[in-house]
Amino acid sequence: MIVGKKHKIIDCTIRDGGLVNNWDFSVEFVQHLYKCLNAAGVDYMEIGYKNSPKLLKGSESSGPWRFLKDDFLQEVIEEKQTTKLSALVDIGRVDVNDIVPREKSMLDLIRVACYIKDVDEALELVQLFHERGYESTLNIMALSNVKENQLIEAFKRISHSVVDVVYIVDSYGSLMPSDIQYLVKMFQKHLPSKRLGAHMHNNLQLGLANTLAAADHGVELLDCSVYGMGRAAGNCPTELLVGLLKNSNYSLRPVLDMVEKYMIPLRNIEEWGYLIPYMITGMFDEHPRSAMAFLNSPDRNMALQFYDMLTVPNVKS
Amino acid sequence: MIVGKKHKIIDCTIRDGGLVNNWDFSVEFVQHLYKCLNAAGVDYMEIGYKNSPKLLKGSESSGPWRFLKDDFLQEVIEEKQTTKLSALVDIGRVDVNDIVPREKSMLDLIRVACYIKDVDEALELVQLFHERGYESTLNIMALSNVKENQLIEAFKRISHSVVDVVYIVDSYGSLMPSDIQYLVKMFQKHLPSKRLGAHMHNNLQLGLANTLAAADHGVELLDCSVYGMGRAAGNCPTELLVGLLKNSNYSLRPVLDMVEKYMIPLRNIEEWGYLIPYMITGMFDEHPRSAMAFLNSPDRNMALQFYDMLTVPNVKS
Repeated sequence: MIVGKKHKIIDCTIRDGGLVNNWDFSVEFVQHLYKCLNAAGVDYMEIGYKNSPKLLKGSESSGPWRFLKDDFLQEVIEEKQTTKLSALVDIGRVDVNDIVPREKSMLDLIRVACYIKDVDEALELVQLFHERGYESTLNIMALSNVKENQLIEAFKRISHSVVDVVYIVDSYGSLMPSDIQYLVKMFQKHLPSKRLGAHMHNNLQLGLANTLAAADHGVELLDCSVYGMGRAAGNCPTELLVGLLKNSNYSLRPVLDMVEKYMIPLRNIEEWGYLIPYMITGMFDEHPRSAMAFLNSPDRNMALQFYDMLTVPNVKS
Repeated sequence: MIVGKKHKIIDCTIRDGGLVNNWDFSVEFVQHLYKCLNAAGVDYMEIGYKNSPKLLKGSESSGPWRFLKDDFLQEVIEEKQTTKLSALVDIGRVDVNDIVPREKSMLDLIRVACYIKDVDEALELVQLFHERGYESTLNIMALSNVKENQLIEAFKRISHSVVDVVYIVDSYGSLMPSDIQYLVKMFQKHLPSKRLGAHMHNNLQLGLANTLAAADHGVELLDCSVYGMGRAAGNCPTELLVGLLKNSNYSLRPVLDMVEKYMIPLRNIEEWGYLIPYMITGMFDEHPRSAMAFLNSPDRNMALQFYDMLTVPNVKS
C-alpha cells in the first residue's frame, strides 16, 4: 500500500481518443485540454502518436495528432506549464530520424507500445529515446493473451534495459481487479528496479476499478482519458481517477470544465464506451475489432447475433 | 473466499428500474424478462414494490409494478419456474393487510428497505412476513451516511430477529471496493448468523466492481439489473454479473436477449447510467435527487454549474 502522493496520472484523451475520431481534434480542443489538465494537476498529457505517415497506409485523412511534429507542437503549446507532454510510438511505425533531442522538443516522455514478440525491438527504441534525453515507458499490449513463460523471458531483457517504466496494458478490457493484483505482483517480483504503469480499458465497466487496484498495489503511472474517450469501450475516465485516487491532490473541477465544453458535445457525434459488442469482446478476451465492425453495420443493436458470431463455430466468420 | 456456487443473483430491473420510468413496463416486457432470467439461471426476480397506493401520494399514474397485487401477479406469471419472485416494501408505505400468506401468493421473498433509524419498525415487518411464510431481507439504505455506533447498536436487534439476510446498500453509489470489504467484515463480525446481501449503484462506475468485491468476501445475495437500469446512475448490470461471477453457472445469452429486445430500445427513450451529475453526487456521497432535478432542467449538460451548486456555499440552494 502506497502512502503519500506516489502516483502520476497520464491523460491519453488525444492519443487513445484519436482512435475514435481519426485524431480530428481542433487545436483549440487540445489547447483547452492542456489548460484543464494543468489546472487539475494532472502529471502528463499524451498529445498523440509520434509515428511516421510514411510508414502507415491511409494516413492522409488523419488529424495531426497521429503524426506529431515538433514544430507543430511548439505552435500548439505556446507556453509549457507543469503538465508534461507524452507521445506514443508503435514498433515498425516510427522513423527514428523524426526523434530530435529532447531539448529541441516539447515532449518529455516517449512511450513504446509493442506486443510481447517485439520486446527486443521496443527496447532498442527505448535505448535510442533514452540517449536523446527522453523519459521512456515500455507498454506491453494484450497482456491478457501473453503466456507467463513468454513474459518472464521478456522480463530478463527488460530488467537490463534503460527503460524507466513498464506498463501493464489491458488492451482488450478483459481483466478483473484480482487479475491486476496478480500481474502487478508478478511484474514487481521480476522487475524490482522498474517503476510500473497501468493502462486499462472499460469493456466490463472495470476501467476505474482496475486502475485503482493497480494503484493500491504500487503501480505508479496511471492512464486515463477524459469522459473515458478511447478506442471501443474507452479507458478509465480521468474525472473519476482525479476525483477518487487516494493520497492525491488533483482538482476535479477543471476536468469537468473539459467534459462540459468539449466531451459531452463530442460524445453526441462520436461513439465510445459501454456498448454490448465491446462488453462481449472484453468478456471473451478478444480484440474489439469485430465489435467495431459490427457496430458500423445495420445490425449494430443485435446483441445476440454478435454473441453467436463469437460463440457458435459455424457462424463465426 | 467462497468456493463453489454460494451466490444468488437478484435481478431488480422492474423494481429499481421502475424508479426511472414510473413502473411503465408492459406485461409482455415483464413476462419476457422472467423467461430470460429463468433461462439464465438467475435466482430471484424482484418484480416490483408491494407498497400500498393508499399510503403514497401521486400514485395514480404509476404502473402496476409499484403496487403489486397477488391476483395480478398470478395473471402475469402464468407458470412459476425456477426463478423465485421478490418484492420490496418501504417502512410506512406498506399495508400489512395486503400481505397474504405465502402459499396464496406468487412471491417468495419480501425485502424491507429502511433507514437506520427505522430498523425496529422494519424488524417488526420482517417478523410478520416471516410468520406469513416468506423469506425476508432487511435492506439498510444509505449505509455510507450511517455512523458506525448507530450501526453496531442496530446489529444487536437485527441479530436477535428472524430476518434471513441483511443487505449492504450503497444508495448513493459512493462506496469503493475497499469500503465494501470493510463493511462486509463488520457485518460478518456483528451478524455471524445472518446471510448478507449487496445492492450497489453505479455512479462512479463501480457497481460491478463493488458487487464482485462483496461476493469475494462472502456476501451471498447480489443485486443487479439488466443493462444497469435503476434510479439515476443505475445498478450493477445483470449481464456483467452473470458473465463474470466466479464459480457460478449462469448463462449470459438469455440476458443479452432481454438487452437486445427491450433494454436498448428503452434506453433510447428513458435515461439512466453514467451521467456527470450522478457521478458528482456519488463522489460527494449525496442522494441523487439534486442531480435528477438538474438533468430535467435546460442546463442539464452544464457540469460545472452543478458541481458549483454542491460545492460553493452561496450557490447551493
